[in-house]
Amino acid sequence: MIKVSVIGATGYAGVELIRLLVLHPDVKLSCLTSKTYAGQKIQEVYPHLNGLLDHELQEQNDEEIGAVSDVVFLALPHGHAVSTAQKICQAGKKVIDLGADLRFRDTDIYEEWYHVKHENPALSQEAVYGLPEINRGKIKEAQAVGNPGCYPTSTILAMYPLIKEGLIDLNTIIVDSKSGISGAGRNAVITSLYGESAENLKAYNVGKHRHTPEIEQALGEAAGKEVLISFTPHLIPMTRGILTTAYATLNQEGAVRNLHDLYQSYYQDEYFVRLHQPGIWPQTKWVTGTNFCDLGLMADPRTNRVIVTAVIDNLVKGAAGQAVQNMNILFNLPEKAGLEQVPLYP
Amino acid sequence: MIKVSVIGATGYAGVELIRLLVLHPDVKLSCLTSKTYAGQKIQEVYPHLNGLLDHELQEQNDEEIGAVSDVVFLALPHGHAVSTAQKICQAGKKVIDLGADLRFRDTDIYEEWYHVKHENPALSQEAVYGLPEINRGKIKEAQAVGNPGCYPTSTILAMYPLIKEGLIDLNTIIVDSKSGISGAGRNAVITSLYGESAENLKAYNVGKHRHTPEIEQALGEAAGKEVLISFTPHLIPMTRGILTTAYATLNQEGAVRNLHDLYQSYYQDEYFVRLHQPGIWPQTKWVTGTNFCDLGLMADPRTNRVIVTAVIDNLVKGAAGQAVQNMNILFNLPEKAGLEQVPLYP
Amino acid sequence: MIKVSVIGATGYAGVELIRLLVLHPDVKLSCLTSKTYAGQKIQEVYPHLNGLLDHELQEQNDEEIGAVSDVVFLALPHGHAVSTAQKICQAGKKVIDLGADLRFRDTDIYEEWYHVKHENPALSQEAVYGLPEINRGKIKEAQAVGNPGCYPTSTILAMYPLIKEGLIDLNTIIVDSKSGISGAGRNAVITSLYGESAENLKAYNVGKHRHTPEIEQALGEAAGKEVLISFTPHLIPMTRGILTTAYATLNQEGAVRNLHDLYQSYYQDEYFVRLHQPGIWPQTKWVTGTNFCDLGLMADPRTNRVIVTAVIDNLVKGAAGQAVQNMNILFNLPEKAGLEQVPLYP
Amino acid sequence: MIKVSVIGATGYAGVELIRLLVLHPDVKLSCLTSKTYAGQKIQEVYPHLNGLLDHELQEQNDEEIGAVSDVVFLALPHGHAVSTAQKICQAGKKVIDLGADLRFRDTDIYEEWYHVKHENPALSQEAVYGLPEINRGKIKEAQAVGNPGCYPTSTILAMYPLIKEGLIDLNTIIVDSKSGISGAGRNAVITSLYGESAENLKAYNVGKHRHTPEIEQALGEAAGKEVLISFTPHLIPMTRGILTTAYATLNQEGAVRNLHDLYQSYYQDEYFVRLHQPGIWPQTKWVTGTNFCDLGLMADPRTNRVIVTAVIDNLVKGAAGQAVQNMNILFNLPEKAGLEQVPLYP
Repeated sequence: MIKVSVIGATGYAGVELIRLLVLHPDVKLSCLTSKTYAGQKIQEVYPHLNGLLDHELQEQNDEEIGAVSDVVFLALPHGHAVSTAQKICQAGKKVIDLGADLRFRDTDIYEEWYHVKHENPALSQEAVYGLPEINRGKIKEAQAVGNPGCYPTSTILAMYPLIKEGLIDLNTIIVDSKSGISGAGRNAVITSLYGESAENLKAYNVGKHRHTPEIEQALGEAAGKEVLISFTPHLIPMTRGILTTAYATLNQEGAVRNLHDLYQSYYQDEYFVRLHQPGIWPQTKWVTGTNFCDLGLMADPRTNRVIVTAVIDNLVKGAAGQAVQNMNILFNLPEKAGLEQVPLYP
Repeated sequence: MIKVSVIGATGYAGVELIRLLVLHPDVKLSCLTSKTYAGQKIQEVYPHLNGLLDHELQEQNDEEIGAVSDVVFLALPHGHAVSTAQKICQAGKKVIDLGADLRFRDTDIYEEWYHVKHENPALSQEAVYGLPEINRGKIKEAQAVGNPGCYPTSTILAMYPLIKEGLIDLNTIIVDSKSGISGAGRNAVITSLYGESAENLKAYNVGKHRHTPEIEQALGEAAGKEVLISFTPHLIPMTRGILTTAYATLNQEGAVRNLHDLYQSYYQDEYFVRLHQPGIWPQTKWVTGTNFCDLGLMADPRTNRVIVTAVIDNLVKGAAGQAVQNMNILFNLPEKAGLEQVPLYP
Repeated sequence: MIKVSVIGATGYAGVELIRLLVLHPDVKLSCLTSKTYAGQKIQEVYPHLNGLLDHELQEQNDEEIGAVSDVVFLALPHGHAVSTAQKICQAGKKVIDLGADLRFRDTDIYEEWYHVKHENPALSQEAVYGLPEINRGKIKEAQAVGNPGCYPTSTILAMYPLIKEGLIDLNTIIVDSKSGISGAGRNAVITSLYGESAENLKAYNVGKHRHTPEIEQALGEAAGKEVLISFTPHLIPMTRGILTTAYATLNQEGAVRNLHDLYQSYYQDEYFVRLHQPGIWPQTKWVTGTNFCDLGLMADPRTNRVIVTAVIDNLVKGAAGQAVQNMNILFNLPEKAGLEQVPLYP
Repeated sequence: MIKVSVIGATGYAGVELIRLLVLHPDVKLSCLTSKTYAGQKIQEVYPHLNGLLDHELQEQNDEEIGAVSDVVFLALPHGHAVSTAQKICQAGKKVIDLGADLRFRDTDIYEEWYHVKHENPALSQEAVYGLPEINRGKIKEAQAVGNPGCYPTSTILAMYPLIKEGLIDLNTIIVDSKSGISGAGRNAVITSLYGESAENLKAYNVGKHRHTPEIEQALGEAAGKEVLISFTPHLIPMTRGILTTAYATLNQEGAVRNLHDLYQSYYQDEYFVRLHQPGIWPQTKWVTGTNFCDLGLMADPRTNRVIVTAVIDNLVKGAAGQAVQNMNILFNLPEKAGLEQVPLYP
């Protein structure tokens, strides 16, 4: 059994990690920390966990946690993970950061978009960007994994084959994403109130959302050159789910390729990526509670554009599920271990 | 492995059975039938099942199904299950009916409330009412199980200890229940449209809902005498979940008993019933996707009434999950097999 | 034109007052105050008001407000209205308090349930309980009006004819109410987040909600003797709307009366109370955005109980709309002035 | 008073017309028709209208309706409006068609996208496209108005100034729209059920939605040359509201212009168009129940793109409200008559 700890266990990503880890056949939950609720039982904070586990939430003590864990998940606000990740690594243990602190090879970009100084650029450079379908080989060897953001996961999986094959004009990529409200976290702010967000819809952080450079980094690596995109996130009145609609103009080669076949060849061995038949556009409810990323695509001859949609559960493939998938890879477990769920429908 | 078939696999109860059975460690899904979609693959009707199973939906042929199954779940409209149940039983196989046709020992009551003639009163008399927490012993021996309705499951578990112990005035029971809209099934009717039911709330079938006599049958058996209740169902703008609020006036003995202790003694060994601490009132989200029934209760000295609330996921403990629990009992499997889920929260 | 000010203009009750007052033909909006947002324009806080008014939010200065207003609406947390109300009255102006501070004739009861000392019991005694359908005559003469709570409005209108006519056993009244989440106000608390309240349902404050004694006061006055009720509020995943389901056992006279005719005779001249035909149960969406209270009822011969349901928009008939109705009465305006709206459906 | 009739009064557009017309100071509702509910009172079909009007729904008889009306609103499925519109015009009365049948000057395009033969191309050519902010002058003189679609209204108002001024590369327009579910009408189909659409999100009709050529017609007229766009609609789990996010690459002139000033100059005299300050992105809830179209925009120097978002209530500015606005123009009434509403918030 792998000893697993979660730092920041009472946010939405933390409690989703618990949901997945409690039933993981190879995991023993070791230490759960919470700044806000330390000293309470987890089931007092989250009564839906009653009878399922009985851990007392602890203050964060990096040394102690490193000592009792084989792997530590960090579910902290950005800017708070670096020093902890460093200590866990020094203790010889694995670390998977669900925040942004280890996602960037070039920490200048991180600092520019996140407006915070990165405390350990070397650690960030060594860390592996944990998108298994693209980076599985590197993840196997990693000690520290930067778990991807929710919007980037959906966007990169949607665009990767097109870019890797050089089939689109890289200057034409537009990414219009829609996320459920759990993406804003369990924070007591007015904009996340039911009365403000139910039966409502808005764009936000237009032109400046921090997932933009993360997407550009991954697409740029695939392209072998810099990629700039327009990225617009929207907030949708639902709890879970992201749908990303990505647009790009096909180049000459792209215009004549069978894109559905292309995607099939890229993803046919990926259990968690499900490519739907042409004309079928995936819905977020098709992946609720699971680690799946469902894709639909078409080339539109009228405009010579390709349109790809991708749906994920933002808390699973967009956060905790992908983190568990990364853990499975790090420890040579079956990649599906603990992640074989059937979507909750309806 | 137990060979399991589902008749009526494409309604909400049917597809929820599939969700649970696909991952059940002791089950092999044999035959899935659908009147509407026969000939199609299940994943064409429900694309969220893509990659998880690959069954073709079949026409209903009772003899063939009986031959290839150890147990058959019936998820049909009331009035359609009896003849099929009879044939399955004659083939020596077990049958679990998720509808109302096998719930009543006295089929006169069934006929009065359901306005349909019962085709086989003897079968209904032999069948066991499948509420394991009350009837586990009888279920073990049964061949045909009448799986309880959603409202009755929550109500009976909420009131059973009080009635069994004779602590309330039986003439004072009022049951005010609230259900999510999936309870209305996957039927294309205007009243179930998003535009009609979102941000809306209503009582319906006041004084005449068909779950009334089912509740009265179970409470009457517990009391050893006839019980009449007021039962009012309401439709809530959410997909899953039932919350039942039950009221009764305490009698002299009831007024002096520690009711929380009483409930604890009744349910402490029941994995699927979770009694919360005094002052904690369970929420439907605490049980989403699981077979739990969570209870809260208080005695109010101002009015000398006891108030009990019970929450379940209407599609799990209120339908498919309880049916699987019954199957586990019928086949001497661990009662939790295939039902160890963590609620999806948020 | 009547000069109207709102103290506490940026809570949900405040902004709903603004919605109604902006288009009221006889009103000139004078002063809007906000503790949190003083100094900002109202449309900066609520951009949906862009182009509709251009008031700067002010600090609360009771003397100045009294000087420039004919009537002042108070939309403050309980315990904060008394001294302001007193000053407004002393300035010879009318005051309508949307909170609880002026609702009780007996301030001992207020103090017992609200756990706060009442600063001016005499003012509370003189104030009139502003439920026009019951108290219209007294409201006309009042200087200070205690605007009813949302749950009490629906409950009292539902039960009044039965109690006034002496048709029920007063010891058997059970009130099971369901409210949308706007009832919790525009407060940044975790329990009101979308992720916590959407697709969720719970009872709360069971046996101790502060609207209990308010209902009991009004029903007790109608009965001519003390009335104790069981009152259980529930939180529903919708923004606006209350549905109250009230139960009581009929006495001998009640059992033989035509209750629908009775209600018709009580409410036929009340524009804002709409009694639906037997068998029709009102839905909250039927009153969204309006000052209507819709009623449905039946006597159930099986149990000898009467069941009444009432729906209101909690922010209109349950708060701001009723306050405007009271203002209209205070100033001898047509009672419907500014309140003739068609429900927003769907 | 203008005598107004509605053909197709019981769909969502029809009942929204009623909501607006009931309180319109210059309107007398004459005849309401319904294929499904003819012979019933409107309040029996829509009990929320109880007490507000008392019309019996009639069979559609074009001659009779023409005789008793000054203007007739048609709220029918596409392909059913032409012959009726023709008869109303021949009777010398005005007609406003809320469907697509009179929206296209070139009926070949209509026939290509709608797969139906147009019965009277001449009528369609004479009819005026009823987007008042663009076409007010022509509407004044029209006899038949083709009321714009919901998506086109939001998109055209969002893009018009950019195109009219020639500031963008016309080959780069991408329109990503999101609509509430009432846009699918009051039709009993499974995809519109609460259980299927709540907590869910999907793209649909990608590359082939019928509003595409309608948008292209209007933008093409503004540009003075053909315009082809990518248009992707999405279905959002809310009842009312559309948010359109439009993208285009700025040309040399566009890159140096102050676009906010430009939009202000175009829309400052338009009561129903509200341009928000830079950095403020409008939300659908800001316009609920009203005829407003709220706009936000930015030029993004990183990508040299302009991004414009527009929100409307799809049933008001996207259908019934705009139709009333057109009626006001046709009859020289104040354009705001009957349309001065404050958004319902929250």
